[in-house]
Amino acid sequence: MQTNKRHTLNPNIIAARYAVRGKTFLKAQEIKKEIDSSKEKGEKNPYPFDEIVYCNIGNPQMCNQKPLTYLRQVISLCEDPSLMELTDRYPKDVIKHAQELIDAMGCEGTTGAYTHSKGLLYIRKNVCKYLKQRDGVEVNPDDIFLTDGASTGIKMILNMVISHHLHGIMIPIPQYPLYSAAISQFGGSQVEYYLNEDNNWEIDMDSVEKALSDALYNGISIKAFVVINPGNPTGQVMTVDNMKKIIEFCFKNNIILLADEVYQENIWGDVPFNSFRKVLEMMPEEIRTGLHLISFFSVSKGFYGECGKRGGFFEITNIGKFEKTQMYKLASINLCSNVVGQEAVELICNRPKPGDESYELFEKEKNQILGELKLKANIIYEALNKCEGIHCNPAMGALYLFPRIDMPQKFLDECTKKNLIPDEEYCLRMLKKTGICVVPGCGFGQLDNTYHYRIAILPPLEQIQKTISFIQNFHNEFMKEYK
Amino acid sequence: MQTNKRHTLNPNIIAARYAVRGKTFLKAQEIKKEIDSSKEKGEKNPYPFDEIVYCNIGNPQMCNQKPLTYLRQVISLCEDPSLMELTDRYPKDVIKHAQELIDAMGCEGTTGAYTHSKGLLYIRKNVCKYLKQRDGVEVNPDDIFLTDGASTGIKMILNMVISHHLHGIMIPIPQYPLYSAAISQFGGSQVEYYLNEDNNWEIDMDSVEKALSDALYNGISIKAFVVINPGNPTGQVMTVDNMKKIIEFCFKNNIILLADEVYQENIWGDVPFNSFRKVLEMMPEEIRTGLHLISFFSVSKGFYGECGKRGGFFEITNIGKFEKTQMYKLASINLCSNVVGQEAVELICNRPKPGDESYELFEKEKNQILGELKLKANIIYEALNKCEGIHCNPAMGALYLFPRIDMPQKFLDECTKKNLIPDEEYCLRMLKKTGICVVPGCGFGQLDNTYHYRIAILPPLEQIQKTISFIQNFHNEFMKEYK
Repeated sequence: MQTNKRHTLNPNIIAARYAVRGKTFLKAQEIKKEIDSSKEKGEKNPYPFDEIVYCNIGNPQMCNQKPLTYLRQVISLCEDPSLMELTDRYPKDVIKHAQELIDAMGCEGTTGAYTHSKGLLYIRKNVCKYLKQRDGVEVNPDDIFLTDGASTGIKMILNMVISHHLHGIMIPIPQYPLYSAAISQFGGSQVEYYLNEDNNWEIDMDSVEKALSDALYNGISIKAFVVINPGNPTGQVMTVDNMKKIIEFCFKNNIILLADEVYQENIWGDVPFNSFRKVLEMMPEEIRTGLHLISFFSVSKGFYGECGKRGGFFEITNIGKFEKTQMYKLASINLCSNVVGQEAVELICNRPKPGDESYELFEKEKNQILGELKLKANIIYEALNKCEGIHCNPAMGALYLFPRIDMPQKFLDECTKKNLIPDEEYCLRMLKKTGICVVPGCGFGQLDNTYHYRIAILPPLEQIQKTISFIQNFHNEFMKEYK
Repeated sequence: MQTNKRHTLNPNIIAARYAVRGKTFLKAQEIKKEIDSSKEKGEKNPYPFDEIVYCNIGNPQMCNQKPLTYLRQVISLCEDPSLMELTDRYPKDVIKHAQELIDAMGCEGTTGAYTHSKGLLYIRKNVCKYLKQRDGVEVNPDDIFLTDGASTGIKMILNMVISHHLHGIMIPIPQYPLYSAAISQFGGSQVEYYLNEDNNWEIDMDSVEKALSDALYNGISIKAFVVINPGNPTGQVMTVDNMKKIIEFCFKNNIILLADEVYQENIWGDVPFNSFRKVLEMMPEEIRTGLHLISFFSVSKGFYGECGKRGGFFEITNIGKFEKTQMYKLASINLCSNVVGQEAVELICNRPKPGDESYELFEKEKNQILGELKLKANIIYEALNKCEGIHCNPAMGALYLFPRIDMPQKFLDECTKKNLIPDEEYCLRMLKKTGICVVPGCGFGQLDNTYHYRIAILPPLEQIQKTISFIQNFHNEFMKEYK
């Protein structure tokens, strides 16, 4: 591991890229240090802004989104059950839920023990109830694996199916770079299909078919098909019709469908969210009982936004017994996902119901958070489209907008000359002028000669007008400079 | 992923084995279900015991070890900071520490945001102070990576150094099966050196040299050397002299040293724990500044035993800048380790000091837990050695004993005939007769024609006499049957 012996490192790791915390993010951290240090020294701030606005990542509570009271109260009680004697302080359902969780731990009420490798059975049973309510389908708790956020589960599955560089994983372009990074990490091939920007980022089925036949021609066998719905970074919400086509495609070609549905409760437009599990149920029996489906859920998104908890789960459908055993073994090697993260999953899936003492507050907090997010998605969307040379689809869901910048030719020429990536350079300049940290489109993938960035819709509402005027002013000056 | 298409699964995953939650553990779960179901139906319990005693895994709180009050109070406050108004309820240092942690989160005091990928800087700084106190060495917070337990860090490093089946990792035999499983998972080669049972499981340097030359002869290049100190499953604590030899060996052969030191606060004998980082400091400058060392720590063991929190960290020493950047990137793809686990690391490394309001209780709880563990290690050790045909080294440290069973020839012949693994069969029989779940030696590796099992020293003290008499009676009957 010496600098002069780079070849000793796994080249697949070296090849992996993760733009969300890549170049612009690292630069943002540098700038923050400069500002802090100038403050300390009593010197003039070298930048025209006081703080970094982190729109590079879906990290709501970093942008001042408040945690849900119910969730935090129950978790807090589970850590220190002596608090339960404070019956005046807590709603009855909070104490009841904490007590149930503690009883379920099976070890005199401590959250400090390893659980079953798939997660506590009590929680997995409640996840199944939640899924039944969502999808109308009975799920076996044995088919639920609790994980440290969705990422851990996704990586585990990719590690299971990839064992050769000719093993391909189909991913959308644009995609969330966890996928490209993990495929690289495990030494597989990224097989790209395209989302159609001109049709609100709907999956282009021609491009799906073409990607498959090109891959086969190149000797790549497809192991899994990744779909992100609602889309990240693109924010589309899939129609049932489009989903059926994907299911049919995967079934016909015997490909495992990996459904990344972590933004399922972030819906801003008229198209409702439907899970792939639910749509699968509408298919003919052969497909319904034959498609290999794995669906991912996270407590980091939605209105809960508990990123730091690293809670999540995946649900497997029509996966063979042998494969299930292998998954269980792999989960066992990791012992178990963190227990507080498991509790967070429980509290999202088994939330207060009408009549429960916490119900009203829970609903109020939920509606306020979702209402603000929707408002912000809309404000940023409109502001971006008002800029000359920016085109942006509305966010039908998820936590991002993905505007396209029609870069002036003069700027593109300059980038070619200086060997810069145009969208990355654009984002770096915006960062230095405005303090707003976004992720260039090249980190997600985009059609050649198009340039985008991903911006999270998370800046606090009281800051949003300032944020968008910063963005607009920067862009207008940029256009003026290169016109 | 259909049963008839097994070849589509990564063969490295299929090959991985993890005995700690393997056959005997699965059988134990079955038996538990049977007992529970017979209770429910009001039928007679088909087994001569009422509950499973889980000695298969170092999971202290599952065996009724109490969590540390200080740790739980601070974590609970961080989840629900409104509790801080209850100044009468909490010691002052608890509130102060919680407030510091919350302030360090940098997002209006929520534990719900992703942190820096390496973990909160505030915590990494306190880890460095802790290490300085332990080792007398200045550590840069940049060289600390907080992880979800130690396992995640170990797997991350193995994934980084293995990219070919001819990449070898040297591991002790017996070893903790996370290593063999992860080496298999990432497609490397396990290169085995031996611990000498007749010399209290000290590392046999001849066997180390032989393992290396055999590996080289077979075209295997060694990427890393794993040492577990205090030993798991073997419980030895290494002498400084022995450690120096390992350091010299790794330096001479340009091998990264991975020091698994998660049991560093579980010391039962006269040999004190010394970290490899500390011993490295005693070496000549060339080695001190040249050896690539990575050391692992966990909040799951020690006297804290917070397995469910999945907190831990690793410290890197003399690792090149390029490699560090790659590690940081890999950590970033995983976003961050869970924040509550990070807090647990903070609270172990930055514990109450003399004069702090919580100090006395903290020390009392610590001493009680460590005292009980030491007592239990000794009771089980003595009881085992009283059995005819069982030889057991004392546990100098860690949470296990690893007795050797001299199996009667008649039993071995029967196993050969029935195609059974003798130590596995022995453990399964013990489980069915006593409810005590241990892990057969074959899961850790052992010299050919020797048979062991690993038993955790964790059964509650009030149960320990019953446990050992169960073990003794079972073994005596077993010997009677096969003599």
